[in-house]
Amino acid sequence: MMRHSERVLVAISGGKDSLALWDILLDLGYSADGVYLGLGIGDYSDNSRSYAQTYAGVRGAALQVIDLPDDQGFSVPDAARATKRVPCSACGLSKRHLLNQAALDGGYNVLATGHNLDDEAAVLFGNVMQWHVGYLARQRPVLPETAGFARRVKPLIRLSERESAAYCVLKGIDYIVDECPMAAGNRHLRYKETLNEIEERTPGAKAAFYFQFLDQMLPVLEDVAAAEREQVGTCTRCGAPSSADVCAFCKLVERATA
Amino acid sequence: MMRHSERVLVAISGGKDSLALWDILLDLGYSADGVYLGLGIGDYSDNSRSYAQTYAGVRGAALQVIDLPDDQGFSVPDAARATKRVPCSACGLSKRHLLNQAALDGGYNVLATGHNLDDEAAVLFGNVMQWHVGYLARQRPVLPETAGFARRVKPLIRLSERESAAYCVLKGIDYIVDECPMAAGNRHLRYKETLNEIEERTPGAKAAFYFQFLDQMLPVLEDVAAAEREQVGTCTRCGAPSSADVCAFCKLVERATA
Repeated sequence: MMRHSERVLVAISGGKDSLALWDILLDLGYSADGVYLGLGIGDYSDNSRSYAQTYAGVRGAALQVIDLPDDQGFSVPDAARATKRVPCSACGLSKRHLLNQAALDGGYNVLATGHNLDDEAAVLFGNVMQWHVGYLARQRPVLPETAGFARRVKPLIRLSERESAAYCVLKGIDYIVDECPMAAGNRHLRYKETLNEIEERTPGAKAAFYFQFLDQMLPVLEDVAAAEREQVGTCTRCGAPSSADVCAFCKLVERATA
Repeated sequence: MMRHSERVLVAISGGKDSLALWDILLDLGYSADGVYLGLGIGDYSDNSRSYAQTYAGVRGAALQVIDLPDDQGFSVPDAARATKRVPCSACGLSKRHLLNQAALDGGYNVLATGHNLDDEAAVLFGNVMQWHVGYLARQRPVLPETAGFARRVKPLIRLSERESAAYCVLKGIDYIVDECPMAAGNRHLRYKETLNEIEERTPGAKAAFYFQFLDQMLPVLEDVAAAEREQVGTCTRCGAPSSADVCAFCKLVERATA
Protein backbone atom coordinates (compact mmCIF):
# COMPACT_ATOMS: atom_id res chain seq x y z
CA MET A 1 0.00 0.00 0.00
CA MET A 2 2.80 2.45 0.81
CA ARG A 3 6.53 2.61 1.52
CA HIS A 4 8.27 4.29 4.41
CA SER A 5 9.94 6.62 1.91
CA GLU A 6 6.57 7.92 0.71
CA ARG A 7 4.58 10.87 2.08
CA VAL A 8 1.17 9.83 3.28
CA LEU A 9 -1.86 12.07 3.77
CA VAL A 10 -4.42 10.56 6.15
CA ALA A 11 -8.04 11.70 5.86
CA ILE A 12 -9.08 12.46 9.45
CA SER A 13 -12.76 12.73 10.43
CA GLY A 14 -12.18 12.75 14.19
CA GLY A 15 -13.77 9.30 14.45
CA LYS A 16 -12.23 6.07 15.71
CA ASP A 17 -11.16 4.62 12.37
CA SER A 18 -9.25 7.57 10.98
CA LEU A 19 -7.55 8.37 14.31
CA ALA A 20 -6.61 4.69 14.80
CA LEU A 21 -5.15 4.62 11.30
CA TRP A 22 -3.15 7.80 11.84
CA ASP A 23 -1.89 6.49 15.17
CA ILE A 24 -0.80 3.16 13.68
CA LEU A 25 0.97 4.81 10.75
CA LEU A 26 2.81 7.23 13.05
CA ASP A 27 3.79 4.38 15.40
CA LEU A 28 5.09 2.40 12.42
CA GLY A 29 7.29 5.33 11.46
CA TYR A 30 5.49 6.52 8.37
CA SER A 31 5.66 10.14 7.34
CA ALA A 32 1.92 10.68 7.80
CA ASP A 33 0.22 14.07 7.94
CA GLY A 34 -3.50 14.51 8.53
CA VAL A 35 -6.15 16.44 6.65
CA TYR A 36 -9.50 17.36 8.17
CA LEU A 37 -12.38 18.47 5.97
CA GLY A 38 -15.06 20.57 7.69
CA LEU A 39 -18.45 19.92 6.15
CA GLY A 40 -20.45 22.65 7.90
CA ILE A 41 -22.68 20.25 9.84
CA GLY A 42 -23.15 22.52 12.89
CA ASP A 43 -21.87 21.29 16.27
CA TYR A 44 -21.02 17.92 14.82
CA SER A 45 -18.39 19.43 12.55
CA ASP A 46 -16.99 21.65 15.32
CA ASN A 47 -16.71 18.70 17.70
CA SER A 48 -15.16 16.31 15.23
CA ARG A 49 -12.57 18.93 14.20
CA SER A 50 -11.70 19.46 17.82
CA TYR A 51 -11.03 15.70 18.34
CA ALA A 52 -8.82 15.72 15.25
CA GLN A 53 -6.90 18.80 16.43
CA THR A 54 -6.50 17.45 19.95
CA TYR A 55 -5.00 14.21 18.67
CA ALA A 56 -2.67 16.09 16.31
CA GLY A 57 -1.58 18.32 19.21
CA VAL A 58 -0.85 15.36 21.51
CA ARG A 59 1.20 13.60 18.82
CA GLY A 60 2.83 16.77 17.51
CA ALA A 61 1.61 15.76 14.06
CA ALA A 62 0.71 18.08 11.18
CA LEU A 63 -3.01 18.51 10.50
CA GLN A 64 -4.26 20.55 7.59
CA VAL A 65 -7.81 21.89 8.05
CA ILE A 66 -9.97 22.53 5.01
CA ASP A 67 -13.44 24.02 5.38
CA LEU A 68 -16.12 23.40 2.77
CA PRO A 69 -18.28 26.45 3.67
CA ASP A 70 -15.26 28.81 3.91
CA ASP A 71 -13.58 27.58 0.74
CA GLN A 72 -16.52 26.72 -1.51
CA GLY A 73 -19.34 28.80 -0.07
CA PHE A 74 -21.70 25.95 0.87
CA SER A 75 -22.15 23.33 3.58
CA VAL A 76 -23.34 19.74 3.19
CA PRO A 77 -26.84 20.68 4.43
CA ASP A 78 -26.90 23.53 1.83
CA ALA A 79 -25.90 21.09 -0.90
CA ALA A 80 -28.57 18.59 0.14
CA ARG A 81 -31.24 21.29 -0.06
CA ALA A 82 -30.01 22.57 -3.41
CA THR A 83 -29.72 19.16 -5.04
CA LYS A 84 -32.80 17.67 -3.31
CA ARG A 85 -30.71 14.54 -2.68
CA VAL A 86 -29.57 12.85 0.53
CA PRO A 87 -26.78 14.81 2.24
CA CYS A 88 -24.47 11.77 2.14
CA SER A 89 -24.32 12.10 -1.63
CA ALA A 90 -22.91 15.66 -1.62
CA CYS A 91 -20.70 14.77 1.35
CA GLY A 92 -19.07 11.77 -0.33
CA LEU A 93 -18.55 13.69 -3.55
CA SER A 94 -16.98 16.67 -1.74
CA LYS A 95 -14.69 14.41 0.29
CA ARG A 96 -13.47 12.48 -2.74
CA HIS A 97 -12.76 15.65 -4.69
CA LEU A 98 -11.25 17.87 -2.00
CA LEU A 99 -9.18 15.22 -0.21
CA ASN A 100 -7.68 14.09 -3.50
CA GLN A 101 -6.98 17.72 -4.34
CA ALA A 102 -5.28 18.19 -0.97
CA ALA A 103 -3.08 15.12 -1.57
CA LEU A 104 -2.04 16.38 -5.02
CA ASP A 105 -1.50 19.99 -3.91
CA GLY A 106 0.61 18.87 -0.96
CA GLY A 107 2.76 16.59 -3.09
CA TYR A 108 1.76 13.45 -1.17
CA ASN A 109 2.25 10.01 -2.73
CA VAL A 110 -0.71 8.40 -1.05
CA LEU A 111 -4.10 9.34 0.38
CA ALA A 112 -5.06 6.91 3.17
CA THR A 113 -8.57 6.56 4.60
CA GLY A 114 -9.79 4.67 7.66
CA HIS A 115 -12.53 2.56 6.00
CA ASN A 116 -12.96 -0.66 7.97
CA LEU A 117 -14.44 -4.04 7.07
CA ASP A 118 -17.95 -2.99 8.14
CA ASP A 119 -17.78 0.12 5.95
CA GLU A 120 -16.48 -1.69 2.91
CA ALA A 121 -18.89 -4.60 3.24
CA ALA A 122 -21.83 -2.16 3.50
CA VAL A 123 -20.65 -0.20 0.44
CA LEU A 124 -20.25 -3.48 -1.44
CA PHE A 125 -23.73 -4.54 -0.35
CA GLY A 126 -25.19 -1.29 -1.69
CA ASN A 127 -23.34 -1.61 -4.98
CA VAL A 128 -24.54 -5.21 -5.32
CA MET A 129 -28.17 -4.47 -4.49
CA GLN A 130 -28.23 -2.21 -7.54
CA TRP A 131 -25.47 -3.89 -9.54
CA HIS A 132 -23.47 -0.73 -10.13
CA VAL A 133 -20.90 -2.68 -12.13
CA GLY A 134 -18.61 0.32 -12.60
CA TYR A 135 -18.56 1.04 -8.86
CA LEU A 136 -17.94 -2.64 -8.13
CA ALA A 137 -14.95 -2.66 -10.47
CA ARG A 138 -13.47 0.31 -8.58
CA GLN A 139 -14.08 -0.99 -5.04
CA ARG A 140 -10.49 -1.95 -4.27
CA PRO A 141 -8.35 -1.53 -1.14
CA VAL A 142 -5.69 0.09 -3.31
CA LEU A 143 -6.50 2.37 -6.24
CA PRO A 144 -3.24 3.05 -8.04
CA GLU A 145 -2.17 6.57 -8.94
CA THR A 146 -3.60 7.73 -12.27
CA ALA A 147 -3.58 11.10 -14.04
CA GLY A 148 -5.18 13.55 -11.61
CA PHE A 149 -5.62 11.00 -8.80
CA ALA A 150 -3.23 10.32 -5.95
CA ARG A 151 -2.94 6.65 -4.95
CA ARG A 152 -5.78 5.85 -2.53
CA VAL A 153 -5.38 3.13 0.08
CA LYS A 154 -7.57 1.67 2.83
CA PRO A 155 -5.22 -0.05 5.28
CA LEU A 156 -7.92 -0.98 7.85
CA ILE A 157 -10.19 -3.08 5.64
CA ARG A 158 -9.38 -6.22 7.66
CA LEU A 159 -10.52 -4.67 10.95
CA SER A 160 -14.11 -4.55 12.15
CA GLU A 161 -15.40 -1.29 13.59
CA ARG A 162 -15.37 -2.85 17.04
CA GLU A 163 -11.71 -3.55 16.64
CA SER A 164 -10.80 -0.01 15.66
CA ALA A 165 -12.90 1.28 18.57
CA ALA A 166 -11.11 -1.14 20.93
CA TYR A 167 -7.76 0.05 19.57
CA CYS A 168 -8.63 3.67 20.40
CA VAL A 169 -9.81 2.75 23.89
CA LEU A 170 -6.66 0.75 24.59
CA LYS A 171 -4.41 3.51 23.26
CA GLY A 172 -6.35 6.24 25.07
CA ILE A 173 -7.29 8.05 21.87
CA ASP A 174 -10.34 10.30 22.29
CA TYR A 175 -12.62 10.28 19.28
CA ILE A 176 -16.08 11.54 18.37
CA VAL A 177 -18.50 8.74 19.28
CA ASP A 178 -21.66 10.26 17.80
CA GLU A 179 -22.66 9.25 14.31
CA CYS A 180 -23.08 12.10 11.87
CA PRO A 181 -26.60 13.51 12.47
CA MET A 182 -27.19 13.75 8.72
CA ALA A 183 -26.50 10.04 8.23
CA ALA A 184 -29.19 8.80 10.64
CA GLY A 185 -31.36 6.21 8.90
CA ASN A 186 -29.45 6.35 5.65
CA ARG A 187 -29.08 3.37 3.36
CA HIS A 188 -25.47 2.72 4.27
CA LEU A 189 -26.35 2.32 7.97
CA ARG A 190 -29.30 0.08 7.12
CA TYR A 191 -27.03 -2.13 5.02
CA LYS A 192 -24.66 -2.34 7.98
CA GLU A 193 -27.55 -3.53 10.15
CA THR A 194 -28.60 -6.10 7.57
CA LEU A 195 -25.05 -7.44 7.36
CA ASN A 196 -24.84 -7.53 11.16
CA GLU A 197 -28.01 -9.62 11.29
CA ILE A 198 -26.61 -12.03 8.71
CA GLU A 199 -23.31 -12.14 10.61
CA GLU A 200 -25.10 -12.98 13.86
CA ARG A 201 -26.78 -16.00 12.26
CA THR A 202 -23.73 -17.03 10.24
CA PRO A 203 -20.53 -15.86 11.94
CA GLY A 204 -17.88 -15.06 9.35
CA ALA A 205 -20.41 -14.21 6.65
CA LYS A 206 -19.44 -10.54 6.50
CA ALA A 207 -15.74 -11.18 6.02
CA ALA A 208 -16.49 -13.92 3.47
CA PHE A 209 -18.75 -11.54 1.56
CA TYR A 210 -16.07 -8.86 1.29
CA PHE A 211 -12.91 -10.94 0.93
CA GLN A 212 -14.43 -13.43 -1.52
CA PHE A 213 -15.40 -10.39 -3.58
CA LEU A 214 -11.78 -9.25 -3.65
CA ASP A 215 -10.51 -12.75 -4.47
CA GLN A 216 -13.18 -14.10 -6.81
CA MET A 217 -15.03 -11.20 -8.38
CA LEU A 218 -12.58 -8.33 -8.79
CA PRO A 219 -10.37 -10.25 -11.25
CA VAL A 220 -13.46 -10.81 -13.45
CA LEU A 221 -14.15 -7.06 -13.36
CA GLU A 222 -10.66 -6.11 -14.54
CA ASP A 223 -11.88 -5.34 -18.09
CA VAL A 224 -14.69 -3.15 -16.76
CA ALA A 225 -12.19 -1.20 -14.64
CA ALA A 226 -9.86 -0.75 -17.61
CA ALA A 227 -12.71 0.45 -19.84
CA GLU A 228 -13.77 2.94 -17.16
CA ARG A 229 -10.22 4.28 -16.84
CA GLU A 230 -10.09 4.85 -20.58
CA GLN A 231 -13.22 7.00 -20.49
CA VAL A 232 -11.80 9.45 -17.97
CA GLY A 233 -10.98 12.85 -19.38
CA THR A 234 -10.51 16.21 -17.70
CA CYS A 235 -13.06 18.62 -16.23
CA THR A 236 -13.08 21.79 -18.35
CA ARG A 237 -13.57 23.93 -15.23
CA CYS A 238 -11.23 22.57 -12.57
CA GLY A 239 -9.00 20.18 -14.47
CA ALA A 240 -9.86 17.21 -12.24
CA PRO A 241 -10.38 13.78 -13.84
CA SER A 242 -13.94 13.41 -15.09
CA SER A 243 -15.83 11.31 -17.60
CA ALA A 244 -18.08 14.31 -18.37
CA ASP A 245 -17.19 17.79 -19.67
CA VAL A 246 -17.76 19.30 -16.24
CA CYS A 247 -17.00 17.12 -13.22
CA ALA A 248 -19.63 16.19 -10.64
CA PHE A 249 -18.01 18.37 -7.97
CA CYS A 250 -18.03 21.49 -10.15
CA LYS A 251 -21.70 20.83 -10.94
CA LEU A 252 -22.38 20.50 -7.22
CA VAL A 253 -20.62 23.80 -6.49
CA GLU A 254 -22.69 25.48 -9.18
CA ARG A 255 -26.01 24.21 -7.82
CA ALA A 256 -25.20 24.67 -4.14
CA THR A 257 -24.04 28.27 -4.55
CA ALA A 258 -26.68 29.36 -7.10
CA MET B 1 -38.05 -19.41 -24.06
CA MET B 2 -40.05 -21.93 -26.10
CA ARG B 3 -42.11 -22.25 -29.26
CA HIS B 4 -45.58 -23.71 -29.63
CA SER B 5 -44.10 -26.41 -31.84
CA GLU B 6 -41.82 -27.61 -29.04
CA ARG B 7 -42.55 -30.24 -26.41
CA VAL B 8 -42.26 -28.84 -22.90
CA LEU B 9 -41.75 -30.81 -19.69
CA VAL B 10 -42.86 -28.87 -16.61
CA ALA B 11 -41.29 -29.80 -13.26
CA ILE B 12 -44.26 -30.07 -10.89
CA SER B 13 -43.81 -29.99 -7.12
CA GLY B 14 -47.49 -29.64 -6.24
CA GLY B 15 -46.86 -26.08 -5.03
CA LYS B 16 -48.35 -22.83 -6.33
CA ASP B 17 -45.57 -21.85 -8.71
CA SER B 18 -45.25 -25.06 -10.70
CA LEU B 19 -49.01 -25.59 -10.93
CA ALA B 20 -49.54 -21.96 -12.00
CA LEU B 21 -46.85 -22.37 -14.65
CA TRP B 22 -48.36 -25.60 -15.98
CA ASP B 23 -51.81 -24.00 -16.05
CA ILE B 24 -50.58 -20.95 -17.94
CA LEU B 25 -48.69 -23.03 -20.51
CA LEU B 26 -51.70 -25.30 -21.10
CA ASP B 27 -54.01 -22.27 -21.42
CA LEU B 28 -51.60 -20.74 -23.92
CA GLY B 29 -51.80 -23.90 -26.01
CA TYR B 30 -48.34 -25.30 -25.37
CA SER B 31 -47.74 -29.02 -25.53
CA ALA B 32 -46.79 -29.25 -21.85
CA ASP B 33 -46.53 -32.48 -19.86
CA GLY B 34 -45.71 -32.59 -16.16
CA VAL B 35 -43.10 -34.53 -14.22
CA TYR B 36 -43.31 -35.04 -10.46
CA LEU B 37 -40.26 -36.18 -8.50
CA GLY B 38 -41.01 -37.89 -5.17
CA LEU B 39 -38.25 -37.17 -2.69
CA GLY B 40 -39.30 -39.55 0.09
CA ILE B 41 -40.06 -36.80 2.61
CA GLY B 42 -42.88 -38.67 4.43
CA ASP B 43 -46.39 -37.18 4.37
CA TYR B 44 -45.11 -34.05 2.69
CA SER B 45 -44.12 -35.99 -0.42
CA ASP B 46 -47.39 -37.98 -0.45
CA ASN B 47 -49.45 -34.82 -0.14
CA SER B 48 -47.59 -32.84 -2.73
CA ARG B 49 -47.82 -35.72 -5.23
CA SER B 50 -51.54 -35.91 -4.64
CA TYR B 51 -51.98 -32.18 -5.47
CA ALA B 52 -49.97 -32.70 -8.65
CA GLN B 53 -52.03 -35.74 -9.65
CA THR B 54 -55.32 -34.03 -8.85
CA TYR B 55 -54.45 -31.06 -11.06
CA ALA B 56 -53.31 -33.35 -13.89
CA GLY B 57 -56.58 -35.29 -13.60
CA VAL B 58 -58.74 -32.16 -13.72
CA ARG B 59 -56.91 -30.86 -16.80
CA GLY B 60 -56.56 -34.26 -18.46
CA ALA B 61 -52.83 -33.57 -18.70
CA ALA B 62 -50.03 -36.14 -18.69
CA LEU B 63 -48.01 -36.37 -15.46
CA GLN B 64 -45.00 -38.64 -15.18
CA VAL B 65 -44.18 -39.66 -11.58
CA ILE B 66 -40.60 -40.49 -10.64
CA ASP B 67 -39.75 -41.67 -7.16
CA LEU B 68 -36.28 -41.17 -5.71
CA PRO B 69 -36.54 -43.95 -3.07
CA ASP B 70 -38.06 -46.46 -5.52
CA ASP B 71 -35.69 -45.71 -8.37
CA GLN B 72 -32.45 -44.90 -6.59
CA GLY B 73 -32.86 -46.60 -3.22
CA PHE B 74 -32.61 -43.51 -1.01
CA SER B 75 -34.73 -40.59 0.14
CA VAL B 76 -33.64 -36.98 0.71
CA PRO B 77 -33.53 -37.54 4.50
CA ASP B 78 -31.33 -40.65 3.89
CA ALA B 79 -29.01 -38.59 1.69
CA ALA B 80 -28.77 -35.81 4.27
CA ARG B 81 -27.78 -38.32 6.97
CA ALA B 82 -25.25 -40.06 4.72
CA THR B 83 -23.61 -36.86 3.47
CA LYS B 84 -23.92 -34.99 6.79
CA ARG B 85 -25.04 -31.97 4.80
CA VAL B 86 -28.29 -30.02 4.75
CA PRO B 87 -31.08 -31.97 3.01
CA CYS B 88 -31.62 -29.11 0.52
CA SER B 89 -28.24 -29.87 -0.97
CA ALA B 90 -29.06 -33.52 -1.89
CA CYS B 91 -32.56 -32.44 -2.91
CA GLY B 92 -31.41 -29.80 -5.37
CA LEU B 93 -28.78 -32.09 -6.83
CA SER B 94 -31.27 -34.94 -7.31
CA LYS B 95 -33.84 -32.65 -8.90
CA ARG B 96 -31.36 -31.15 -11.35
CA HIS B 97 -30.08 -34.56 -12.41
CA LEU B 98 -33.30 -36.56 -12.57
CA LEU B 99 -35.53 -33.88 -14.08
CA ASN B 100 -32.99 -33.23 -16.81
CA GLN B 101 -32.76 -36.97 -17.40
CA ALA B 102 -36.55 -37.18 -17.66
CA ALA B 103 -36.59 -34.38 -20.24
CA LEU B 104 -33.89 -36.05 -22.34
CA ASP B 105 -35.42 -39.55 -22.06
CA GLY B 106 -38.85 -38.25 -23.00
CA GLY B 107 -37.53 -36.38 -26.03
CA TYR B 108 -38.66 -32.97 -24.73
CA ASN B 109 -37.15 -29.78 -26.12
CA VAL B 110 -37.46 -27.80 -22.93
CA LEU B 111 -37.55 -28.33 -19.16
CA ALA B 112 -39.57 -25.54 -17.51
CA THR B 113 -39.53 -24.79 -13.78
CA GLY B 114 -41.74 -22.49 -11.70
CA HIS B 115 -39.02 -20.42 -10.01
CA ASN B 116 -40.40 -16.98 -9.23
CA LEU B 117 -38.75 -13.62 -8.55
CA ASP B 118 -38.50 -14.29 -4.80
CA ASP B 119 -36.77 -17.63 -5.44
CA GLU B 120 -34.33 -16.27 -7.96
CA ALA B 121 -33.49 -13.18 -5.92
CA ALA B 122 -32.79 -15.35 -2.86
CA VAL B 123 -30.58 -17.72 -4.87
CA LEU B 124 -28.76 -14.71 -6.28
CA PHE B 125 -28.35 -13.29 -2.79
CA GLY B 126 -26.80 -16.56 -1.58
CA ASN B 127 -24.44 -16.71 -4.54
CA VAL B 128 -23.41 -13.11 -3.95
CA MET B 129 -22.84 -13.49 -0.21
CA GLN B 130 -20.18 -16.05 -1.03
CA TRP B 131 -19.26 -14.81 -4.50
CA HIS B 132 -19.70 -18.15 -6.24
CA VAL B 133 -18.69 -16.62 -9.56
CA GLY B 134 -19.36 -19.81 -11.52
CA TYR B 135 -22.88 -20.11 -10.11
CA LEU B 136 -23.50 -16.43 -10.80
CA ALA B 137 -22.48 -16.88 -14.43
CA ARG B 138 -25.02 -19.70 -14.79
CA GLN B 139 -27.95 -17.99 -13.06
CA ARG B 140 -29.96 -17.22 -16.19
CA PRO B 141 -33.69 -17.42 -16.95
CA VAL B 142 -32.82 -19.48 -20.04
CA LEU B 143 -29.99 -22.00 -20.15
CA PRO B 144 -29.62 -23.09 -23.76
CA GLU B 145 -29.48 -26.76 -24.70
CA THR B 146 -25.95 -28.18 -24.49
CA ALA B 147 -24.59 -31.72 -24.83
CA GLY B 148 -26.43 -33.76 -22.18
CA PHE B 149 -28.65 -30.91 -21.00
CA ALA B 150 -32.12 -30.05 -22.22
CA ARG B 151 -32.86 -26.34 -22.50
CA ARG B 152 -33.97 -25.08 -19.08
CA VAL B 153 -36.31 -22.12 -18.75
CA LYS B 154 -37.90 -20.23 -15.85
CA PRO B 155 -40.92 -18.40 -17.30
CA LEU B 156 -42.20 -17.00 -13.96
CA ILE B 157 -39.13 -15.02 -12.89
CA ARG B 158 -41.05 -11.74 -13.24
CA LEU B 159 -43.79 -12.83 -10.81
CA SER B 160 -43.54 -12.57 -7.03
CA GLU B 161 -44.64 -15.56 -4.96
CA ARG B 162 -47.71 -13.63 -3.87
CA GLU B 163 -48.67 -13.22 -7.50
CA SER B 164 -48.39 -16.91 -8.32
CA ALA B 165 -50.39 -17.72 -5.16
CA ALA B 166 -53.03 -15.18 -6.19
CA TYR B 167 -53.14 -16.73 -9.67
CA CYS B 168 -53.87 -20.17 -8.17
CA VAL B 169 -56.56 -18.79 -5.89
CA LEU B 170 -58.26 -16.94 -8.76
CA LYS B 171 -58.08 -19.98 -11.04
CA GLY B 172 -59.26 -22.37 -8.30
CA ILE B 173 -56.07 -24.46 -8.41
CA ASP B 174 -55.46 -26.43 -5.21
CA TYR B 175 -51.82 -26.57 -4.20
CA ILE B 176 -49.77 -27.68 -1.23
CA VAL B 177 -49.49 -24.66 1.04
CA ASP B 178 -47.03 -26.11 3.57
CA GLU B 179 -43.35 -25.41 3.10
CA CYS B 180 -41.15 -28.48 2.87
CA PRO B 181 -40.48 -29.56 6.49
CA MET B 182 -36.81 -30.16 5.69
CA ALA B 183 -36.33 -26.60 4.45
CA ALA B 184 -37.44 -24.92 7.70
CA GLY B 185 -34.84 -22.40 8.79
CA ASN B 186 -32.56 -23.02 5.85
CA ARG B 187 -30.34 -20.35 4.37
CA HIS B 188 -32.51 -19.83 1.30
CA LEU B 189 -35.55 -18.98 3.43
CA ARG B 190 -33.48 -16.66 5.62
CA TYR B 191 -32.23 -14.84 2.51
CA LYS B 192 -35.86 -14.48 1.39
CA GLU B 193 -36.66 -12.86 4.74
CA THR B 194 -33.69 -10.52 4.48
CA LEU B 195 -34.75 -9.47 0.99
CA ASN B 196 -38.32 -8.98 2.19
CA GLU B 197 -37.10 -6.67 4.95
CA ILE B 198 -35.07 -4.66 2.43
CA GLU B 199 -38.07 -4.59 0.08
CA GLU B 200 -40.31 -3.28 2.84
CA ARG B 201 -37.99 -0.35 3.49
CA THR B 202 -37.21 0.25 -0.20
CA PRO B 203 -40.07 -0.95 -2.40
CA GLY B 204 -38.74 -2.22 -5.71
CA ALA B 205 -35.36 -3.17 -4.28
CA LYS B 206 -35.85 -6.90 -4.84
CA ALA B 207 -36.77 -6.58 -8.50
CA ALA B 208 -33.94 -4.10 -9.05
CA PHE B 209 -31.48 -6.50 -7.42
CA TYR B 210 -32.44 -9.37 -9.70
CA PHE B 211 -33.16 -7.58 -12.97
CA GLN B 212 -30.14 -5.27 -12.75
CA PHE B 213 -28.09 -8.43 -12.28
CA LEU B 214 -29.50 -9.83 -15.52
CA ASP B 215 -28.96 -6.54 -17.37
CA GLN B 216 -25.68 -5.27 -15.93
CA MET B 217 -23.75 -8.17 -14.50
CA LEU B 218 -24.50 -11.24 -16.59
CA PRO B 219 -22.93 -9.75 -19.75
CA VAL B 220 -19.70 -9.22 -17.78
CA LEU B 221 -19.79 -12.88 -16.70
CA GLU B 222 -20.09 -14.20 -20.25
CA ASP B 223 -16.42 -15.27 -20.37
CA VAL B 224 -16.74 -17.10 -17.05
CA ALA B 225 -19.78 -18.98 -18.35
CA ALA B 226 -17.96 -19.92 -21.56
CA ALA B 227 -14.92 -21.17 -19.63
CA GLU B 228 -17.19 -23.27 -17.40
CA ARG B 229 -18.93 -24.79 -20.42
CA GLU B 230 -15.57 -25.80 -21.87
CA GLN B 231 -14.64 -27.72 -18.74
CA VAL B 232 -17.71 -29.95 -18.87
CA GLY B 233 -16.97 -33.55 -19.79
CA THR B 234 -18.99 -36.72 -19.24
CA CYS B 235 -19.56 -38.78 -16.09
CA THR B 236 -17.86 -42.17 -16.53
CA ARG B 237 -20.72 -43.90 -14.70
CA CYS B 238 -23.94 -42.39 -16.01
CA GLY B 239 -22.86 -40.39 -19.03
CA ALA B 240 -24.33 -37.14 -17.71
CA PRO B 241 -22.41 -33.90 -18.20
CA SER B 242 -19.86 -33.42 -15.43
CA SER B 243 -16.67 -31.49 -14.83
CA ALA B 244 -15.34 -34.40 -12.71
CA ASP B 245 -14.78 -38.06 -13.66
CA VAL B 246 -17.83 -39.11 -11.68
CA CYS B 247 -20.71 -36.66 -11.50
CA ALA B 248 -22.02 -35.27 -8.21
CA PHE B 249 -25.26 -37.23 -8.48
CA CYS B 250 -23.49 -40.59 -8.94
CA LYS B 251 -21.31 -39.75 -5.91
CA LEU B 252 -24.46 -38.95 -3.94
CA VAL B 253 -26.07 -42.26 -4.95
CA GLU B 254 -22.93 -44.09 -3.86
CA ARG B 255 -22.83 -42.45 -0.43
CA ALA B 256 -26.56 -42.55 0.23
CA THR B 257 -26.91 -46.25 -0.61
CA ALA B 258 -23.64 -47.43 0.99
